Amino acid sequence: MSILVVGSVAFDAVKTPFGEREEILGGSATHFAIAASFFTNVSIVAVVGEDFSENYKDVFRTRNIDITGLEQAQGKTFRWKGEYGYDLNTRQTIYTHLNVFADFKPKLPESSSYCPFLFLGNISPDLQLEVRKHVDARLVALDTMNYWIEKSPQELKEVLKVVDILIINDEEARELAQEPNLIKASKKILQMGPKRIVVKRGEYGAVMFSQNSYFAMPAFPQEEVYDPTGAGDTFAGGFVGYLAATNQIDEAAMRRAMIYGSVMASFNVEAFGCERLEQLSYQTINERFRQFKEITHFDELVFEKKLS
Amino acid sequence: MSILVVGSVAFDAVKTPFGEREEILGGSATHFAIAASFFTNVSIVAVVGEDFSENYKDVFRTRNIDITGLEQAQGKTFRWKGEYGYDLNTRQTIYTHLNVFADFKPKLPESSSYCPFLFLGNISPDLQLEVRKHVDARLVALDTMNYWIEKSPQELKEVLKVVDILIINDEEARELAQEPNLIKASKKILQMGPKRIVVKRGEYGAVMFSQNSYFAMPAFPQEEVYDPTGAGDTFAGGFVGYLAATNQIDEAAMRRAMIYGSVMASFNVEAFGCERLEQLSYQTINERFRQFKEITHFDELVFEKKLS
Repeated sequence: MSILVVGSVAFDAVKTPFGEREEILGGSATHFAIAASFFTNVSIVAVVGEDFSENYKDVFRTRNIDITGLEQAQGKTFRWKGEYGYDLNTRQTIYTHLNVFADFKPKLPESSSYCPFLFLGNISPDLQLEVRKHVDARLVALDTMNYWIEKSPQELKEVLKVVDILIINDEEARELAQEPNLIKASKKILQMGPKRIVVKRGEYGAVMFSQNSYFAMPAFPQEEVYDPTGAGDTFAGGFVGYLAATNQIDEAAMRRAMIYGSVMASFNVEAFGCERLEQLSYQTINERFRQFKEITHFDELVFEKKLS
Repeated sequence: MSILVVGSVAFDAVKTPFGEREEILGGSATHFAIAASFFTNVSIVAVVGEDFSENYKDVFRTRNIDITGLEQAQGKTFRWKGEYGYDLNTRQTIYTHLNVFADFKPKLPESSSYCPFLFLGNISPDLQLEVRKHVDARLVALDTMNYWIEKSPQELKEVLKVVDILIINDEEARELAQEPNLIKASKKILQMGPKRIVVKRGEYGAVMFSQNSYFAMPAFPQEEVYDPTGAGDTFAGGFVGYLAATNQIDEAAMRRAMIYGSVMASFNVEAFGCERLEQLSYQTINERFRQFKEITHFDELVFEKKLS
C-alpha cells in the first residue's frame, strides 16, 4: 500500500451548459484515488450503500485500486446533485442526500497502522483526526471545505496540528485565516501546524507555501470546461500520487507534484465525472506535463545595464 | 530615440487604506515612461497645463526622459482622484477633470516619423490612430480601457488593425471579444489585427497569446499593496522598455519582457504614485527578475512509468 485515502464515494448528478449526467461515480475519495492510481497503488476507506453495484466497483478494480476498505452498508449511497452556471464559476447544489455517509465511521484495515502516504479527504475534521491517530505515515495531506471551516473550526484546528500538507482553495484559505491577502493568510495557516500549504485557484493556477519557499504556477489553458466537479480532489490525487510513486518529499519533488496535480485536474474538467481520467495514459499525462513546461518557461538571461 | 510614448500626464490624488496623497505625478505616459527609462531612452508626447511646474518636469529629466514633446497648454493639468477599498480590488473615481487633456492633439516632434518602438497609451482610439499614421515603427504596442471599448468600438477596431501588440487587462479582453472564456476571447482579438496579446490579471499574474504560442506567469507575491494606480502602464513600460533596449522581438524576448513588466509593476504598487520606481536601481530590478525565476521554476524530469 502506497497511499491510503479516506473520503466519500458518491453518486453525482451534474448539469452544466454542456450537458447532464445522472448517477455518475463521484466523491472525494473516488476522484483522488483514480487520479493517484496512475502513479502508485491506492487503497480506499469509504462507505457506500446497497445500491452500489459491481459495475461501479469495477471502475476501481480496473485501475487497480484496493477497495477492501470500501464498506457496503445498509441503505443508499451518498447522492449529490449540482448545477453549474454559464461560466462554470457558479455552482448551485440541487440536493445532498448523505444516506449511509451520515453515519460513516472509517473502518481501517488492520494492515493500515502504517502507510507511507495518507490523504484525509473532505470529511468531518473529527473523523479525519480519528483516522490520523490510527495511521502513522511518512506524509499526511488534508483537504477540507468552507462547511467545516464554519461548522467545526476547533476540530479542524486540532487535525491541522498533525498533518504535513493542507490542500485547500483560495477562498477557503482566506476564510480559515480570516485574512483577505493570500500571502498573509498562508503564513497564518502555517502557524496552525501544516508544514506546507497548497492553494488551488481554479483558472488562475495554484500556489504552494512553506516557511522558506514559495512556488506559483498558472493553470493549463482550457477553452472548454465540461464539468469542474472533483477537480480539487483530482489535483490532490495527482499531487500525492506523484510524491508517493517517487517517495520524494523535497521542494523540487513538491513542485513537480504541483504540476502533476494540475495536469490531472485539467483532464478531469474535460468531461463529466471521471470519464476523461478513465481513458488516460501515462503518455498523455506526461505530454501535458511537458506542455506546462513549455507555456511557463522563460530563460534566465537578465538585463545587466542600459543598452542604448 | 528608442521609444515614443503618447498618453496622459496627470496630477493624481489617491486614497488607499494605507494613506492618502494629493497632486502626485500620474497618468499613463508618466508611469510608462518612468518604468521604460530603466531600460532605454524614452520620449513623451503629452499635454500638461500652466500649473505643471519645473519640479514635476524634473522627475522626467532625472530619469533622462525626453520631454520636448510635452506640450504646456493654457489651462490646468488633467486631474484625477481615486479611492481604493479595503482589499484594493475595488476603486471608486472621486473626480476626473480632463482640463487641457480634453483638447489634446498629440504634437509629434519632426524627428518622430520613425521610432523603433511606439507605445500608444490609453487615450481615444482616434488619437491613437492619428499618431500611428504619422509614426512608422518596428513595433507598436497599444493599451486601452473599458471606456473606449464601450464608447468607440469602431475606432478601436480600426487602430487594432495597425498595431503589433495589445496590452490589456483580463476584464477588458473579455469585454472587447464579448466572450467570457479568456482563451477564446484572445483568439477572437488576434483576428482583429494584433499579432500578440498581453493580458494582465492583477494578483493572478499575466498571460500572452500569439497565433502559435502561449505563455503564462504568476504575479509576484505581495503582502502589502499600497497603491495599484498605474500598475498596468508600469507593466507596459517594463515590457516595451526591455524589448526596445535589447531590440529583440522574438518569443523568448517577449517572455522575458513579460517578466520585466511584472517586476516593474510589482515595485509600482509598493508605494504611492511613482515613489517606489523613482528609487529603483538596475540591481534591485534584476534581483526581482531572479526571484520570479526562483518562484516559478520546476524541473523537467517527468514520471515515465508506475514505480510501485
